Amino acid sequence: MNVRTEIIAVGSELLLGQIVNSNAQFLSSQLADLGMNVYYHTVVGDNSARLEQAIKIAQDRSNVIIFTGGLGPTKDDLTKETISRTIGKELVFDQEALEYIEQYFVQTKRIMSENNKKQALVLDGANILKNDYGMAPGMALEVDGTIYMLLPGPPKEMKPMFQNYGRTYFQNQLGFQEKITSRVLRYFGIGESQLETDIQDIIDEQVNPTVAPLAGDGEVTLRLTAKHVDENIANQLLNDLEQKINARVGEFFYGYEQTTLAKELTKLLVEKGKTISAAESLTGGMFSEQITALDGASQFLKGSIVCYTNEMKAQVLNVSIDTLAKFGAVSEQCAKEMAEQIRKLAKSDIGISFTGVAGPKPHEGQPVGTVFIGIATQGHETQVYKFHFAGTRNGIRVRTVKYGCHYLVKLLTEIE
Amino acid sequence: MNVRTEIIAVGSELLLGQIVNSNAQFLSSQLADLGMNVYYHTVVGDNSARLEQAIKIAQDRSNVIIFTGGLGPTKDDLTKETISRTIGKELVFDQEALEYIEQYFVQTKRIMSENNKKQALVLDGANILKNDYGMAPGMALEVDGTIYMLLPGPPKEMKPMFQNYGRTYFQNQLGFQEKITSRVLRYFGIGESQLETDIQDIIDEQVNPTVAPLAGDGEVTLRLTAKHVDENIANQLLNDLEQKINARVGEFFYGYEQTTLAKELTKLLVEKGKTISAAESLTGGMFSEQITALDGASQFLKGSIVCYTNEMKAQVLNVSIDTLAKFGAVSEQCAKEMAEQIRKLAKSDIGISFTGVAGPKPHEGQPVGTVFIGIATQGHETQVYKFHFAGTRNGIRVRTVKYGCHYLVKLLTEIE
Repeated sequence: MNVRTEIIAVGSELLLGQIVNSNAQFLSSQLADLGMNVYYHTVVGDNSARLEQAIKIAQDRSNVIIFTGGLGPTKDDLTKETISRTIGKELVFDQEALEYIEQYFVQTKRIMSENNKKQALVLDGANILKNDYGMAPGMALEVDGTIYMLLPGPPKEMKPMFQNYGRTYFQNQLGFQEKITSRVLRYFGIGESQLETDIQDIIDEQVNPTVAPLAGDGEVTLRLTAKHVDENIANQLLNDLEQKINARVGEFFYGYEQTTLAKELTKLLVEKGKTISAAESLTGGMFSEQITALDGASQFLKGSIVCYTNEMKAQVLNVSIDTLAKFGAVSEQCAKEMAEQIRKLAKSDIGISFTGVAGPKPHEGQPVGTVFIGIATQGHETQVYKFHFAGTRNGIRVRTVKYGCHYLVKLLTEIE
Repeated sequence: MNVRTEIIAVGSELLLGQIVNSNAQFLSSQLADLGMNVYYHTVVGDNSARLEQAIKIAQDRSNVIIFTGGLGPTKDDLTKETISRTIGKELVFDQEALEYIEQYFVQTKRIMSENNKKQALVLDGANILKNDYGMAPGMALEVDGTIYMLLPGPPKEMKPMFQNYGRTYFQNQLGFQEKITSRVLRYFGIGESQLETDIQDIIDEQVNPTVAPLAGDGEVTLRLTAKHVDENIANQLLNDLEQKINARVGEFFYGYEQTTLAKELTKLLVEKGKTISAAESLTGGMFSEQITALDGASQFLKGSIVCYTNEMKAQVLNVSIDTLAKFGAVSEQCAKEMAEQIRKLAKSDIGISFTGVAGPKPHEGQPVGTVFIGIATQGHETQVYKFHFAGTRNGIRVRTVKYGCHYLVKLLTEIE
């Protein structure tokens, strides 16, 4: 069976923008794991006529239709009533669900209003999916070659129901053999279109595993996905492909899955037993904040100085007044001294500095986006990197910190 | 015209569950403000045939179709190409967008790959919606009584484009009569259920304006929404309701709309002409980062010291070694000295300090969540506030910075 799945979320609150359709994301990621293709998400309001139309469209283009929402006790909840009419299956009381609901009200000493019973109505012949965190049971059934699954709307009910009962239903009904294994590779310092150009032939020729690029915030990620009955072979397929890709763009690769440059940096600092300190001007503390976000930061961060004014740079950080007067605060020379001085003051192995113009206005005659990053280490000449970034004030600051982490990761990878 | 809007998001990453369709939520909430009915959300992958089918279905049931995603430079980006074919409008180069793209690559000293030019292609006759944060322009046009609007996928490009240009397009094109006016009130230092209890009768009796509470990150917001043909009257309705609410909970109110405590603090610092400096331990630079996120920070921030180790506290910040030995770094005494010393060192009007245990492990015998905030000012005794926060490491840091801003706002509001 060639699975074509559609997820239909029912709820006017989604169409009013009061909540985001996180259920569709959760289910999609679960279904991807199961190797089920998802071709459409649909959101429709609590309106029976429009829901009926949406079901008919889904019947034409999909053979697995998963509904979320509209199983509750109120008049607005009309998902199963509408499906019942559309697919010609009666609604009948599920005895177990009914008893559970009655018992719940006895137990919590609340009075049950009659409409709560409605939650125990299920489609005739459906498999019941137990609701361990609420009253409305889910259900699943196959009619004329199409599978219908009905799940509750609240994520805390829907998610465990799908994980504990929904997945199993699909596995039994569709008889899956193949496992889906995926891996995310993260790159920094290369644009999306450049990376794609570099590996275009690989992307084009891949069938299993597949390669999907995604860009954001100056980073590019590649998701590699392999399908195989044997998980070890799937992993081997991913290894081979990763090697092939990184033979071309490996210099920009920095980590897997949900990691960040700051996390990779802190891991390396701990691993190599090195301490760091930072002198931050335009970044205003963002670098220090990021590397202290993880536990154990006191192992490697000595401390930092946010030197937002020339006064702080000169009097607390000891940058020479001559340098500031002659070259300005946004200069290679100042970045160099800042890195060296913070390293000395904090007695750390590495000192890093950030100075530049975040905007929106130019500063000291330097255009917005001019940034210098200095890195001072023992026994080596201090390195200074110069950039011209485009973007918003925040975008420039974020990019600056990422480049700082990027160079430190490179440095720490190379040293003993 | 009876508006029936459909939002179509294009992107396989949505169908794989890699990202959530937050664009649909944002647009839905914006469209609700404009009084435009949204009846459907659709998500379809980067597949031209399926997108074409989705467009045809939307043409049957909707008269405003908004697309997000698929305007980028890669081969996967096929939204405008597919729409062009489906509605019979040619793609032509937009000169301004083309120049912007070329200029961007010159400015950032990167080499432009040919596929970047594709982003400057627009539907013939469309109104161009400027992209202030990226390269692909948006567009809007009416064909045979249906309005098509194409927006980029990345939220940081899409949101400002819609707010600055998309809304205006709809207002002009659809000529709305009844204006929807809304106002967000922000509160800090009071729990959601407490605030809701305090104003329950007001919430219950409201029809126009309506009141909707929303909680998150230790803050509570109220959204007041009024409908009226006369915007002045709508505003008056909101004023009256705000007054009524703040007569009860006004002491916790701190600002409107998208403001933050850090923004309110920076506004007050500028307004009162005061300078500040910070000594940050557990917050690792988060306070400084937040107050430097806005332009003009050099007016009020002298600088900060992130003193993550006792060594930095003693040797750079000049906290007395006795204090550290006797009371520890997480103590009222240390918070007091940190605030006073940073104020002295940075020569600022106000000094603030943050010390505590962000976790996950206790420190110096103090449990996770113990936090001290010190505030030193001229001619007043230094104030120290003590907290026991619950939550994650990051949650504790975020809450600590918010309380710091909260007390500084109170302080600055009271002084001349």
